[in-house]
Amino acid sequence: MKILAFAASMRKNSYNRMLIKQAAEILKSAPDAVLDLADYREFEMPNYDGDLEDSAGIPPGGREFIRRILAADGLILSTPEYNGGIPGSLKNAIDWASRDDSDPFQGKTLLLLGTSPGRFGSVRGLWHTRIPFEAMGAYVYPEMFALPNARQAFNDAGAFADPKNRDRLEALIRSYLQYVRALMGDRSANHPY
Amino acid sequence: MKILAFAASMRKNSYNRMLIKQAAEILKSAPDAVLDLADYREFEMPNYDGDLEDSAGIPPGGREFIRRILAADGLILSTPEYNGGIPGSLKNAIDWASRDDSDPFQGKTLLLLGTSPGRFGSVRGLWHTRIPFEAMGAYVYPEMFALPNARQAFNDAGAFADPKNRDRLEALIRSYLQYVRALMGDRSANHPY
Amino acid sequence: MKILAFAASMRKNSYNRMLIKQAAEILKSAPDAVLDLADYREFEMPNYDGDLEDSAGIPPGGREFIRRILAADGLILSTPEYNGGIPGSLKNAIDWASRDDSDPFQGKTLLLLGTSPGRFGSVRGLWHTRIPFEAMGAYVYPEMFALPNARQAFNDAGAFADPKNRDRLEALIRSYLQYVRALMGDRSANHPY
Amino acid sequence: MKILAFAASMRKNSYNRMLIKQAAEILKSAPDAVLDLADYREFEMPNYDGDLEDSAGIPPGGREFIRRILAADGLILSTPEYNGGIPGSLKNAIDWASRDDSDPFQGKTLLLLGTSPGRFGSVRGLWHTRIPFEAMGAYVYPEMFALPNARQAFNDAGAFADPKNRDRLEALIRSYLQYVRALMGDRSANHPY
Repeated sequence: MKILAFAASMRKNSYNRMLIKQAAEILKSAPDAVLDLADYREFEMPNYDGDLEDSAGIPPGGREFIRRILAADGLILSTPEYNGGIPGSLKNAIDWASRDDSDPFQGKTLLLLGTSPGRFGSVRGLWHTRIPFEAMGAYVYPEMFALPNARQAFNDAGAFADPKNRDRLEALIRSYLQYVRALMGDRSANHPY
Repeated sequence: MKILAFAASMRKNSYNRMLIKQAAEILKSAPDAVLDLADYREFEMPNYDGDLEDSAGIPPGGREFIRRILAADGLILSTPEYNGGIPGSLKNAIDWASRDDSDPFQGKTLLLLGTSPGRFGSVRGLWHTRIPFEAMGAYVYPEMFALPNARQAFNDAGAFADPKNRDRLEALIRSYLQYVRALMGDRSANHPY
Repeated sequence: MKILAFAASMRKNSYNRMLIKQAAEILKSAPDAVLDLADYREFEMPNYDGDLEDSAGIPPGGREFIRRILAADGLILSTPEYNGGIPGSLKNAIDWASRDDSDPFQGKTLLLLGTSPGRFGSVRGLWHTRIPFEAMGAYVYPEMFALPNARQAFNDAGAFADPKNRDRLEALIRSYLQYVRALMGDRSANHPY
Repeated sequence: MKILAFAASMRKNSYNRMLIKQAAEILKSAPDAVLDLADYREFEMPNYDGDLEDSAGIPPGGREFIRRILAADGLILSTPEYNGGIPGSLKNAIDWASRDDSDPFQGKTLLLLGTSPGRFGSVRGLWHTRIPFEAMGAYVYPEMFALPNARQAFNDAGAFADPKNRDRLEALIRSYLQYVRALMGDRSANHPY
């Protein structure tokens, strides 16, 4: 199964980039998982504008985003919380992607992770981020991973300072991959009703 | 597969009882679905009170609720919207059920339906209702069924006045059952990691 | 100005009772604030049931709840988080109160506090709790007070173990009381349009 | 009092532009209201990027957005719903604005309107949009205005086809302006505690 993973942050030294790299490390040990680790800058696009869409269609960054989602069996996203919610740039990428006839999020599984320097570790943002994905038909995994105190949570090598966080993330990713496998079978099988 | 279905309304002539009966009719035509259509009054319980729990445990209505959830492969709920949100009595049933060691909602699939006399058809309430179920680990199906103008939506026999609503609900239930089947396979299989 | 304050927990040794008592202490030092500190058990009522309402009206606990809200200029509530959301019993009290012609929450100011033993201190529950109050027209103060690690947060006397939490709550209550005063003026004044 | 009003849509023929113009007409009849009707394109800015902020600061469109908010006593926004939520471009504008030391949304009153071609009239999007504004300390008016079936809701002159919608919006704006007046008094007064 193919997993598209990325951090929804443009910042080079983003804590969410560190977190998605930790997730990527864990994914490597799953024998049937093929990782597509994307850089968020590959999906850069202008703000959604209906007139721009009418004249020029979905921009290149949006088309690349759609292509990568469609090629994946599941998505893992690590996202910062901005002002208690989803980053505008991530919502904007969703808004463009939703304009495609392929309906790229429909039936796609998604695991949400997030970290922030604060004590709530982006937990509010993760719940705000679920909503548009679910509105588009994505299967957002119920459990999410919120990591508080990002500044202290990673060591100089960018790995988890506390091995318990690694264990917690590994257990969550294992469960999520089971879920992806189960629903992949669903999509490929032919279930008469 | 066994599906527990009920309307989260005590009222005898509740529009949500009519809606769950329509869902039950549709379920009967799925050859592999066994329906457990419950009456909400079977799950009556007092308001959650930690001291009461300490002295007397989970009340009979709560134990019955847990037993029926655990016996099911999936749940279909039709719920009114009260003040833009989940009915207090439904949240209270969840609160009691969550106290059981069996963690009854964990990994349980759930389809949410709702109807109300207003023009928004309980759509706000459905989104508010998702949250506690997801917080307990339930797989809440992304698409939900919100039926506005409940007073006009059913005929004297309690069936949909507009056949398009029946078709829309049937298509949704079919998709949901596929999802239940896929995830049942997941639970019974042994996926080495 | 009159402030109704209570903890939305029946448990005798509830951490949210400790928290509301701390809020009550702070309120005493505001010269123009008259405190009505209620016990949640005064508002005990059965689960909302439209048929029961038709036959017997709003139950005594609900009528008392409405009477106390209507007598207040503002409300301060300390609420546990149950399963990522509002306690069912609190939502049930809202559901009954909303049935009264007086529309008791309309234009009423509300400050939400919450504590829980976990590391997120009920922050998810507080956001879930805002929604029905706002749907009924209450002015829910934007800032809320979420106190994590409830077990360690109070000393044996039931006061804040860390004085910073007291300072933080005092600053918030001061700001909230300004807001109540401003909106009380609005209700009593005659603003021609 | 000064009211900043705009539609959160770039599209020239946006239904939300029509809706904000209707709100602007209503505002003109309030003798103490001075209207600043902005075009969303004045606030165009790139996606938030922490590295860009470090090197170049808040972009011109963001600084203009902040300047106009700070000059206003209240905001009225008409916003489309994209995928069940806030438009990414609006959230992005909030994300940039929140980076300013002036904390421009803190204590600012806000009325949310929205229209969409669908039958739910952006009601889900409005509730998703409240959250980040409230997280930044804005006083978001509890009642919101959701207008379904946008295609049929406006006549060729761009006015409400049904006068009941105008009456409904006028009553809401009147109530909102009372709220702004009350809270302006609060900010200018000196309330000893």
